[in-house]
Amino acid sequence: MDAAEFRRRGKEMVDFVADYQENIEHRRVYPDVEPGYLRSMIPSEAPLEPESYEDVLRDVDRVIMPGVTHWLSPHFYAYYANSTSFPSILADLLSSGIGTIGFTWAANPACSELETVMLDWLGKMLQLPEDFLSETQGQGGGVIQGTASEATLMALLSARLKTVKCVQESDPQRSEADIISKLIAYTSEEAHSSVEKASIIGGVVIRMVPTDEHFSVRAETLEKMVAEDKATGYIPFFFCATLGTTPCCAFDKIDELGPICNAENIWMHIDAAYAGCAFICPEFRPLLNGVEFADSFSINPNKFLLVGFDCFYFFLPLHLFSTSLSPHLSSDSQHWGIPMARRFRSLKLWFVFRMYGLRGLQAFIRKHVELAKTFENLVRGDNNFEICAEVVMGLVCFRLKGSDELNKALLKQITRTGKIYLVPCKLRGRFVLRFVVCGRTTELRHIQEAWKHITELSSELLQNLFDHEGKEN
Amino acid sequence: MDAAEFRRRGKEMVDFVADYQENIEHRRVYPDVEPGYLRSMIPSEAPLEPESYEDVLRDVDRVIMPGVTHWLSPHFYAYYANSTSFPSILADLLSSGIGTIGFTWAANPACSELETVMLDWLGKMLQLPEDFLSETQGQGGGVIQGTASEATLMALLSARLKTVKCVQESDPQRSEADIISKLIAYTSEEAHSSVEKASIIGGVVIRMVPTDEHFSVRAETLEKMVAEDKATGYIPFFFCATLGTTPCCAFDKIDELGPICNAENIWMHIDAAYAGCAFICPEFRPLLNGVEFADSFSINPNKFLLVGFDCFYFFLPLHLFSTSLSPHLSSDSQHWGIPMARRFRSLKLWFVFRMYGLRGLQAFIRKHVELAKTFENLVRGDNNFEICAEVVMGLVCFRLKGSDELNKALLKQITRTGKIYLVPCKLRGRFVLRFVVCGRTTELRHIQEAWKHITELSSELLQNLFDHEGKEN
Repeated sequence: MDAAEFRRRGKEMVDFVADYQENIEHRRVYPDVEPGYLRSMIPSEAPLEPESYEDVLRDVDRVIMPGVTHWLSPHFYAYYANSTSFPSILADLLSSGIGTIGFTWAANPACSELETVMLDWLGKMLQLPEDFLSETQGQGGGVIQGTASEATLMALLSARLKTVKCVQESDPQRSEADIISKLIAYTSEEAHSSVEKASIIGGVVIRMVPTDEHFSVRAETLEKMVAEDKATGYIPFFFCATLGTTPCCAFDKIDELGPICNAENIWMHIDAAYAGCAFICPEFRPLLNGVEFADSFSINPNKFLLVGFDCFYFFLPLHLFSTSLSPHLSSDSQHWGIPMARRFRSLKLWFVFRMYGLRGLQAFIRKHVELAKTFENLVRGDNNFEICAEVVMGLVCFRLKGSDELNKALLKQITRTGKIYLVPCKLRGRFVLRFVVCGRTTELRHIQEAWKHITELSSELLQNLFDHEGKEN
Repeated sequence: MDAAEFRRRGKEMVDFVADYQENIEHRRVYPDVEPGYLRSMIPSEAPLEPESYEDVLRDVDRVIMPGVTHWLSPHFYAYYANSTSFPSILADLLSSGIGTIGFTWAANPACSELETVMLDWLGKMLQLPEDFLSETQGQGGGVIQGTASEATLMALLSARLKTVKCVQESDPQRSEADIISKLIAYTSEEAHSSVEKASIIGGVVIRMVPTDEHFSVRAETLEKMVAEDKATGYIPFFFCATLGTTPCCAFDKIDELGPICNAENIWMHIDAAYAGCAFICPEFRPLLNGVEFADSFSINPNKFLLVGFDCFYFFLPLHLFSTSLSPHLSSDSQHWGIPMARRFRSLKLWFVFRMYGLRGLQAFIRKHVELAKTFENLVRGDNNFEICAEVVMGLVCFRLKGSDELNKALLKQITRTGKIYLVPCKLRGRFVLRFVVCGRTTELRHIQEAWKHITELSSELLQNLFDHEGKEN
């Protein structure tokens, strides 16, 4: 394919994407395929000779689309969103077209430098303390990682390194392996599984901290556990706080946890993957109070800031740069994460921040929160249902009053019909449905339709249950 | 930006990318900017209100382009390539447009399944042993990672887990921490720094294995080190072999190393990031003989297979799935790497494999190798220069006969003039220039021009040196 053909095919692809997104709500959001559906639909080997582009594109419709879960559909209410937008897609196209790879400054100065400045832009939008910004000293501050898992792992490894160094300073005979075997990390029982995974990779013990009635980790609980563990010879070194947990969007009380971590020399990392984006709105910013005690902080703009996946922010305050995995105080991004090389991802941020402006981004977040409140009210207005956790942002946790089996049956029906897509969670051992307002194009009518669909399915279920019980009596 | 505007802007961006690539050879390949150049060119905060798209695009030309190292330029001979292609860019655009995120099968069945089949396609192109393919059992085989660093880390962590389990089976009282403190990993002194980084993250000791006169690790050297370390109580558990080292594209002798690793219960991982792609050509495949002894194998299609960054293949033979980090024998890609979520990267492979066909990809590789041979001959024909390592694929290591200072001065001149871009390496302590044929559009004339440029600069240097020495005598 030469440049002339690329011009033609590229424009067709732009239309293909625009058509896809404009008509996405008419597609079944959750695909009707069985595991293994794809293999039999395509050859088992690569072709020897080139095929035509028409054939490839035809197969996108024939083979791919029937198996896609449509994350950008307004009927998608699962996980947290991939809140991409057209400016983000354009920036990604530009990034692919330039095809540059950043890992040292020289490998692509523009890539290294734009990233640093964009992280400062976001840091200011979030009103982060000054030492989380790089402009103050001209380097450092934040870096883009691929995913939350990488950010959490980087934080844990940096904390491990810092603690080993610190212990060896007062006890030079003690081996690294011996120190690591005594390290202990903490995170909420409600935290994402990637925190536990990071501890497994880092080879350290982790304890899950129980939460209060709002699913938040509180100071006294952590304090007690730290004291216990110190008494038995462990070295508490890392606490991963969550702002906006995956199951129910709960918030650990970082303003009371931070001082304890600081006093105990425990690295406090804040995982604010989803909810962190909303802190650009002044009304949500108080939830981030206490960040000044944190050693690192990460958020995920592709969940709530109109930036396409994959793009994750990881901030370290300046004084901690030297304790991170980085062997040098350098602006070379290769030392800042697990992968050394990186796409030119900051272009996405630059395009999106400029094309929406801070006010546009705030409006987007507020609209989602408002739609979630609408859904919450619909649930509260129906006596068959209950709300299971406080609705703070775009997530509503709800269930049918009754058994887990009943709720599982409801979710099964929802998934089977494929009109909307939800995933469940467990809260205090109970099976709960999660409804997350995700889409850039989700409107009030979609929320109303979704609720109507849910209540119709649940009425059927309850009617069947009633008939069945009637028969049994 | 609505869909209608996206159609217009997207088509403009396609033309922008096509123009960029068509005219790229007229740009200065290495930018003429100083560190920190960008910050003063853009505002220090995000705008409050939306800006116009025209302004953003204008700034791409004004702010970004002057700071870009043009990886896709035919004058780019540094690192190993990002060998992207137009079909890869189209597939990436489609991936951004669908905006789906894969981590479980349900999150996007098409993403999970296409990836598995594409890895089988590649596995067959490489003639991997059957147990590296997933079709034999219907699951497993390979997975796409972001980068080599992630693949190496995954291999090392899997090996660590396997060895700890194995030791504890015969000695249940021994703690994990104690075992890990005795683990020892090996890799070539010529290996990529990401191997050492993986060992730091994994908390294990690593030893660098000396190489023979061809910069290859040989069986007897490794055997001796393993015996020494076992004698002092260490547990050898991991060897990362390299096929195509970063400095000079050397090849460890895996056919003689594999049996030792197998006998000693050492996990052999093969990092074939760059050179691995060439094994789709029968004439290079013998270099991969011995892969049947390997526990894992990774290659990087974005270095040599016309697939845009980031896209890295990681293969495990089937019987090792259960010893990998994966807690379940599952097809959920979240358990297969550090990050849980992933873009729909396999579309790139599907588009590229089909639009080029196996023969097209082989032709691309052979053309690069031939151009490298041409450059080698030019160097060999000039008495002032010497070739520093065997030229097997697209990399030529060469230097001026004379001091390191002389060669450093030459590279400095090359970088300063910015017409071509090379990076150096150290071979046996000597400063050497690396010339890698990288570009999809690199032709014979570019190679000839590059050589002419190098010899002109070196003549000047040598003349100056001669004059200077003349004066001193």
